[in-house]
Parts: sequence; C-alpha cells; structure tokens
Amino acid sequence: MESRDLLDLAYELVCIDSLSRNEREIADFIEGRLRVSDFYDLVRIGNNIVATPSGYMDDQGIIIAGHIDTVPPSPNLKPKIVADSLCGLGAVDMKGGIAVMMKLLLSQIGGKYVRYVFYASEEISRSFSGLLEIEAFNRGLLRASGAVLMEPTGGYIEAGCQGTAKFKVTIAGERAHSARPWMGVNAIHRSYALLGALDSNVSKAVSIDSCDFKESLLATSINGGIAGNVVPDRVEIGVNYRFAPAGNDSQSLLEIEEFLTSKISSDYGDKVELVDWAPSAPPNLGNSLISSLSDVAGGKVRAKLGWTDVAFFWERQVSACNFGPGDPTLAHTDQEIVSIQELDFCYLTLSQVIGSQVIGLRSEK
Amino acid sequence: MESRDLLDLAYELVCIDSLSRNEREIADFIEGRLRVSDFYDLVRIGNNIVATPSGYMDDQGIIIAGHIDTVPPSPNLKPKIVADSLCGLGAVDMKGGIAVMMKLLLSQIGGKYVRYVFYASEEISRSFSGLLEIEAFNRGLLRASGAVLMEPTGGYIEAGCQGTAKFKVTIAGERAHSARPWMGVNAIHRSYALLGALDSNVSKAVSIDSCDFKESLLATSINGGIAGNVVPDRVEIGVNYRFAPAGNDSQSLLEIEEFLTSKISSDYGDKVELVDWAPSAPPNLGNSLISSLSDVAGGKVRAKLGWTDVAFFWERQVSACNFGPGDPTLAHTDQEIVSIQELDFCYLTLSQVIGSQVIGLRSEK
Repeated sequence: MESRDLLDLAYELVCIDSLSRNEREIADFIEGRLRVSDFYDLVRIGNNIVATPSGYMDDQGIIIAGHIDTVPPSPNLKPKIVADSLCGLGAVDMKGGIAVMMKLLLSQIGGKYVRYVFYASEEISRSFSGLLEIEAFNRGLLRASGAVLMEPTGGYIEAGCQGTAKFKVTIAGERAHSARPWMGVNAIHRSYALLGALDSNVSKAVSIDSCDFKESLLATSINGGIAGNVVPDRVEIGVNYRFAPAGNDSQSLLEIEEFLTSKISSDYGDKVELVDWAPSAPPNLGNSLISSLSDVAGGKVRAKLGWTDVAFFWERQVSACNFGPGDPTLAHTDQEIVSIQELDFCYLTLSQVIGSQVIGLRSEK
Repeated sequence: MESRDLLDLAYELVCIDSLSRNEREIADFIEGRLRVSDFYDLVRIGNNIVATPSGYMDDQGIIIAGHIDTVPPSPNLKPKIVADSLCGLGAVDMKGGIAVMMKLLLSQIGGKYVRYVFYASEEISRSFSGLLEIEAFNRGLLRASGAVLMEPTGGYIEAGCQGTAKFKVTIAGERAHSARPWMGVNAIHRSYALLGALDSNVSKAVSIDSCDFKESLLATSINGGIAGNVVPDRVEIGVNYRFAPAGNDSQSLLEIEEFLTSKISSDYGDKVELVDWAPSAPPNLGNSLISSLSDVAGGKVRAKLGWTDVAFFWERQVSACNFGPGDPTLAHTDQEIVSIQELDFCYLTLSQVIGSQVIGLRSEK
C-alpha cells in the first residue's frame, strides 16, 4: 500500500476540529506542511491559503480548490482508521480531498501550471466564503483557464452545478375568534392549494451535454398561527427551487415565481418573494481540463445536482468541475468514510491530467 | 342619570391593572368596598372573594359570578369616560359586569338567596382558574340552584356554551437533500390533503332549545421545516374543534379524531392526538333562573359559541348562563367600550329577576 501516506494525512486533518469560522488551527497545520516547498508562493489571507507556483500564468494555469471547514460535529463520529478506510467528520467532505491536494502540491506535479486554493467557511452562509475573502484581497488569485473543486464525487466527474433559489410565500387571511371562524379567513387552510401543487409537481429532467440534471421545487418550511383560539391570518412557506444550467437563470427564476404566484391570490395580500439565490454553472465538458479529466477517469461524468463553488468560478468566467474522493451522499451525515482506493484513484487521476495532458494540450497550441 | 354610580365604579375598576395572576390589588379594592356590608360572610381565598348571605341554602340559592382579571393591556387603551361611556381594558370583559355585581350586592337585592363569586385568572390556562382555588378550599362555596356568569353578552342571555378541543396532527416524511427531493418524502407537501379537507369543511349548525350553535373545525397553527436545503420530515398542525352541547362530548371528540385520522396516513408515522379539551354545557332554558332572566330580558336568548365557565358550573350540576354588559365581539380587542345604558339594563334585569321572580318561583313551590 504505497499510498498509506494519503490516508494518514487525511487522518491528521480529520483530527483537527475545523467547524466553519474556526479554521485557524487547520489552516496553520496546512500552511506548516506546505512551507517545506519553496516552489510555491504561499499567501495566507485570514484562514485561507493560496499556493501559486512561480511562473504561473492565469490564462494557461489551472486551480485546484478545496474548503477546509466542516459542518458541526456529531458526537458519535470519532476519527479512526479501520482497515484501509478513514472514518470521521470531514473524511468525505472534504479532508480526503484536501490531503490529495497537499500531496499533489508537495509532489510539484504540473509545475508552474497549477495553483492551489485552500479556503475557509464554505459550509455556511455564502457571504462568509473564503473565496470572497481571497477575491477581496486580490482578484487575480482566482484567475485560471479551468478549476477543479475537490468536492466528494464518488469517482465521477460531477459537471457544472444546479442553481438554487429560495422563495418566501406568504399566505394571508383575516383573524377571528376560533369559535366563529366564518368571521375570518384562515390562512393555514388557504395554503392547501399551493401545497397540493407542489406535491403533484414532478421534478423536471434537463439533459445538457449528456449530463442529466433534475430540477426540483419543494417547500422546506412552513410556519403560521397566533394562538389556539384564533383564526390565523398569516402563513409563511419557504420554497426551494433547484434549477438546471439551462442558459438563463433569471428566466428560470421568473417562471417559477409566476408558477408560485398562480397558486395564491392577492385578494388577502398573499405574495411571493425571491429571498436568495445562487447561479447555476453549465457542464463545460469542452474545457480542456474537464475533458482530460473525463478521459482519464474513464468517461465517468454526471451532473452535479447540488450547488457548489463551481458556480462561483463560472460567474468569474472560469470553467470548473467537481472531482474528489468519497461518496457524496455520505457528506453531512455521521457516516463519513473514505478508503485508500478512493484517495488513490483521485490522486492518480489528477496527477495524470495536470502532469501531462492538460499541459500537453496547452503546449501543442 | 341616576346610574352614573355604576359607570364611575366601573371606571375605578378599569383603572386598576389586573392582568391574570396579578389580581391582588383589584381583589383588595373589591373586598374593601364590600366590607361595609355585614349582611354577607366574605371569604377571601387567594385573590378570590366569595360573599355569602347569612341563611344561604345551596338548593335554593343562586350564584352570580365574574372574573376580575383581564388579558394583557394594549398601550393605546387608557381608561377614560367619554359622554355616557367608559373606554379601557376590561370595560367590556368584564369590569362593567363586576361593577353591576358589586352594586347588586351592596343593595342586598335577593337577600339570602344570592351568593356572589369574584374570581381570578379566568383569561389564562384553565388550571389557574380561581374557581378551582375556591373549589379546593371549600367545594360547598360553588353550590347553587343556578348561576349567572357576567361575561359580556350584548343584552342577550347567552345560553350554554360550546365545548372546545385541541388536537395535534403530526404529518411525517423522510429527510433528504433538497437537490434530490425524490429520495425523501416531503411532510409539508403531504399536509395538503388535511388542509384541503379543513378548508372545504363547513361549520355545522346544531339547534338546541331554539339556540343555534355552530360547530367548527380549523387549523390554528402549522409548523415544519429543518433547513432551507432539507426535505422536511415532520409538520405539526394544531387543530381546534368547537362543538355544540349535543349530549355526548366524548362521542363528538371521537368522531372528529376519526375524521382527522382519515385525512392522514400511518405509512410514514402520521398521527392525531387529542391534547386538551373542555366540555360543553347545554342551554338549560328550563332552569327557573335562566327562564326568568329570559322573560325579563325580553326573550333575547342565543347560543354561546365560545367556551365560558358556564361549562365549569354545568360539570358540577349547576345550570348557568352568560349575561353581562358589553358587546362580546369587543372583548380582547383594544376597542372595549361600555355605556351607562348597557350597565343599567344588566343591573335592572338582574335586580328584577333575583329580587322577585326566581325567589318568587322558589317560594311558590
């Protein structure tokens, strides 16, 4: 087992608590290990680290990026190595991937063509993202001809990402005593039309570049009520929309807003508000980095249905994809586990791509 | 205006804050005013006062009862007298009625046949009711051949009262990531069948002794949701049922529980629980006190749709009705107002009934 070192490094990373907004210790650890290489210019921005090789050129280089924070710990998830696998919070999302990044860097594979970005606070509100801190410090640090996000993808290239939007739907009514409900209008009762429409709404499949995206629209929260003896005059329903990178995010949002609006009535003051959204990103399989990764990984490409920072890069005209060790369905559960084989596969695939093919393609031009 | 004294007394009462659980000052005030009469045996139990005339006999006497607490104050509701009316928190519910009780007592109308009960903490959870404190002290203090509750009734006799029950309906599902909702079961979406059934459910009319009760069934609260990116696995819906005094409360509750259960499914762990209820009370128009009141008030009798302590007395085999000054629809609003004419009508009607007719009926037997 020549790559036991990857598992051991991932274990060390998992042993360091790094809940979002509390990444100093893990950033110190990563920085300390990387300092041994004088091939890279290390820039520390808060708890973010950007390692740029000398001679790096934005239009030819690629970025490999991974977040160093985790979701809150579950008490029953102690780091441990069992046979050839590592269990523990972050094993999958995404300290296994961080270990792969560190080994690639220390091996100087790809030379001057590869920049590494370790960033903080990805698992919480987007406004805290370390990528925004890096961008505010120096926009140029995020420029590249392509990028790989080390999100767990189970051996696949997960291409693009769906956008996500949150709507707040307010259903209104008129208060009354619950012994005389006919004197009021019950906002909770009135919600049924919207909920029924959501319940019978079928997730829409959208195929782009042979990647099968699947849009969905669902209620994630509902709250209403004043007291046990009062007809409620207000219900708030949180609706989440996940949309495919179909080319026009604004249009997608508008159509959903119209759909939701068609299920309510303005008679009592019902309304639909878009309260938050993040853009989608297309697969961009034609990008030389992504197509090379696909070739080397044996053509295992599929759509990313969740939202990732692939969209952050795409907003900045950098084609990116998700590719990292671990089963993505285990992320954020208390059953995170990653094997030597998964770490190896990711390391070897990336080594091959960044060590020869992408740069080869570039060189031929 | 010979009854300006009633309005002035009601004003004094309204000027004393008496939020539930904070009735010491108003009880002191009432007790102080009543001490001048040595015709009654005054018993103070906490902040409750029971005034019993010497020679009172349970099986012939009647009780006039009123609560001395109010709901929480609204900042814009200062006590004031405008022309012939009193505005302020409690003017309607029910310090106008308390003033009438005090004047009746001090006039000794009805002599040994009338006991007065001033009680605390009616406006909050039933377990705090002053009537329970009085009962715990001496069960005999609440015995009578009939009772009048001074709840505001707008010049009507409001007969009986509907029962009330609270159910908690839990709709269940299975969690999943909101980008892959088909891997879970959305509890909020599943709620629509129950809400639709409640929305199309028509309040049922039930006529008893010419009193038109109107049963209702409605959702008063709904809460569910885990996070903006998670398919929710649980929604809790509070349902209030108001039922007519149709003779068998338990059967009424069972039927509603079955109705609610028919709108959910146990497949995912949905359930219906009865979490609280209070009994109904029939009109009992044949009771001599109530029929006399009806005669004197010009036959203005209607059903009480809300729940009142008429049911408390009925549970203890005492027929009671609601009759007090003020428009009941103004209770618990910030627009309480009561006029001299309303106070007078209530005082004169009760004077006539307890001063002659009821006791006359008794004497004839």
